[in-house]
Amino acid sequence: MAVPFAPVEVIERSRRGDRVDAESVESFVRSWLDGTSDDSLVSAWCMLACVRGLDDDHVEALARALIASGDRLELGRFGPTGDVDTTGGVGDTTPLVAAPVAAALGVRVAAMGGRGLAHTGGTADKLEAIPGLQVDLPLERFVRQVRDVGIAVAAQSDRLARGDRRLAELRDATGTVPAAGLVAASTMARKLAGGAGAVHLEVTFGSGAFLGSEEEARATAELMVRIAEPWGRRIGWSLCDMEQPLGRCVGNALEVGEAAEVLRGAGPADLRDAAARAAGGLAEAAGVVAEGEGSGRARAALADGSALAAAERWIEAQSGDPAVWTDPGALPTAPIRIDLTALRAGVVHRIGARGVGEVARWLGAGRLHPGQSIDPVVGVELLVSVGDPVDEGQPMAVIHARDTWAGEQARDMAAAWFGVGEEGEDA
Amino acid sequence: MAVPFAPVEVIERSRRGDRVDAESVESFVRSWLDGTSDDSLVSAWCMLACVRGLDDDHVEALARALIASGDRLELGRFGPTGDVDTTGGVGDTTPLVAAPVAAALGVRVAAMGGRGLAHTGGTADKLEAIPGLQVDLPLERFVRQVRDVGIAVAAQSDRLARGDRRLAELRDATGTVPAAGLVAASTMARKLAGGAGAVHLEVTFGSGAFLGSEEEARATAELMVRIAEPWGRRIGWSLCDMEQPLGRCVGNALEVGEAAEVLRGAGPADLRDAAARAAGGLAEAAGVVAEGEGSGRARAALADGSALAAAERWIEAQSGDPAVWTDPGALPTAPIRIDLTALRAGVVHRIGARGVGEVARWLGAGRLHPGQSIDPVVGVELLVSVGDPVDEGQPMAVIHARDTWAGEQARDMAAAWFGVGEEGEDA
Repeated sequence: MAVPFAPVEVIERSRRGDRVDAESVESFVRSWLDGTSDDSLVSAWCMLACVRGLDDDHVEALARALIASGDRLELGRFGPTGDVDTTGGVGDTTPLVAAPVAAALGVRVAAMGGRGLAHTGGTADKLEAIPGLQVDLPLERFVRQVRDVGIAVAAQSDRLARGDRRLAELRDATGTVPAAGLVAASTMARKLAGGAGAVHLEVTFGSGAFLGSEEEARATAELMVRIAEPWGRRIGWSLCDMEQPLGRCVGNALEVGEAAEVLRGAGPADLRDAAARAAGGLAEAAGVVAEGEGSGRARAALADGSALAAAERWIEAQSGDPAVWTDPGALPTAPIRIDLTALRAGVVHRIGARGVGEVARWLGAGRLHPGQSIDPVVGVELLVSVGDPVDEGQPMAVIHARDTWAGEQARDMAAAWFGVGEEGEDA
Repeated sequence: MAVPFAPVEVIERSRRGDRVDAESVESFVRSWLDGTSDDSLVSAWCMLACVRGLDDDHVEALARALIASGDRLELGRFGPTGDVDTTGGVGDTTPLVAAPVAAALGVRVAAMGGRGLAHTGGTADKLEAIPGLQVDLPLERFVRQVRDVGIAVAAQSDRLARGDRRLAELRDATGTVPAAGLVAASTMARKLAGGAGAVHLEVTFGSGAFLGSEEEARATAELMVRIAEPWGRRIGWSLCDMEQPLGRCVGNALEVGEAAEVLRGAGPADLRDAAARAAGGLAEAAGVVAEGEGSGRARAALADGSALAAAERWIEAQSGDPAVWTDPGALPTAPIRIDLTALRAGVVHRIGARGVGEVARWLGAGRLHPGQSIDPVVGVELLVSVGDPVDEGQPMAVIHARDTWAGEQARDMAAAWFGVGEEGEDA
């Protein structure tokens, strides 16, 4: 290009479907990150990404600009290091369990957790439900903890993955989260900043996630692998269906409590399986267990208490109360619990994950307004799964709320997302 | 709705195609105008409007919120008052001519001019090319001038059409201009704030405008009439094809010069026709001439010098130099002129209006960066129209530029928008 595109031209040309070179996209994002152009341009561009999608070379350009926006750690001197993350979904508690399991298997875990976006939770927000815990770790403390404790999970900060933090906040505030290209660039910017040598990604799809189909999830996973290639990281991934919520809990403290159950060798099977797959995948990518053995070794670490011990060391190192893993009373709880009951007998054929996530967000588990502070105790606890039979009047879920009014509103909103019918009935 | 939608929910639901009630849209816009929500939400919503369109009830809700955002004049006590405007396009000089013609026909003109958007010019920006002229008129001065001089054209201000001004600036800065619903709401908010009893709208379509087809232009015109209904204004409209630029000039001072030619009884026929239609339509809507006679009376006012006299009174009242209408030397001119010549002999079969408008904007006639100041002298002057034969090497346009480098770049960019071929050839 003899004449480079101004930021507004990048948007106009993309809107019209005219060709935009990757360099113009990279400079569009950089000009935003360095303060010469405004949030409102980027949110308009993100909306376009949600509605029309992004070309792969634009995703890679975005990732480059985000990665360049902050410091980037190199932790190779500590031996096999790893990070485990999810592309986000309703009840995506996987990293809370997988991180200490991988640590128990000998991976030095250096994880960069995201904040909740739209109707989904974020690992950093969930961890903050633990009394005393800090996720905004200074860089030096993060590195020291990886070295000395063998496991640390930090949030994006002003130094690490600064661009990803700003982009995530902007997308969350402007309703422009669910674009595969934005998910891919943002996730990888966070991973590459964190400095871990191996990464395992749980790539989620379905109504509770940001990727609609298994096919889109696969394509996004492959794109993330490509983004990481120039940086010499080993990337593994697994798919996770989020058509119904993963596990039984949606809400920050509730999900920590559920992770604790899994770490104690119990908890819902789908979450346990997902965590074993992720931790095992990370251990394989990091080279500490043989290919094909990761998942089994992860289950063993959950059964023999070694994952729980790693989890205790981890939370203690981040100033949190390690009793949350063993004493359900150590977590904060909501003052009001209201049952959502079945209006008829039948079989549960649908629990709409996005809807349940939106109810939890509305209760305060996520952000409806920019900068809103998270309420750790509220959320939705499922008592049934798809396929379960229910009687008329049987509780299907418990709403955890701050007050009765909010709880009753949330119950009525949530009811629309539960489908109960005759066996074999479709609607 | 038992539970009202937060701004981010309005965006998310609209993005997903879920129903959003008009009240939520109105409160979404109001919360932005009163400063409780951010530009970045509205630009994302405007992008959605560009890509997917807006429901009519959402357009009306937007218009209501914009109208409520500033003062609204009532000028009924002055007798027949009128405003004439265009929905925007490349070379849309019509209001500059139509306003004084309507004044000559006995309409007290109280017009609210817009700023240039994207690749198009704006009446307020064009008027500012006149040495000394003020368009940011204080409310009281605007009203006094309507009363005493019979014609005034002001820009949106902090008091009049404040919301429209902010929305126009945001759309221009974020590449989210061309949505029929945004054009309709914005235009009518400006018209209704201005207080004129009758309004004539030139509704433009084609590549140089924001409405793609004649059909979309008609539908938008009808929607604008509906928006105005509760306010008791008489609205007339005419269609204007902007597939090629209207008139021969694109650029602020250049277009003032062209308006002057028309006011002196000459100038390009398409612009003269459009202006006579608009001024005549306004005179009819205001009730100062009989139905069907407006256009003829407007042509007479151009021929007998009465429109020119009204134009002189008008510009003088706004502190501008009235000599611009009679002395071509009174307007500022560009230091550099560079010819764009035909590479082959043939017939001109295309002059892409949007492309020509973009070249003018790139030269500085419009804004590529938020808050950028307009260069009044730059632009593109066409020497041929679609259908004209040209010889190889014959100048087809003159680029008016600040310096040779910019002029040559602009010439090369503009060349792509001129199609010359064999008679009957299509590409």
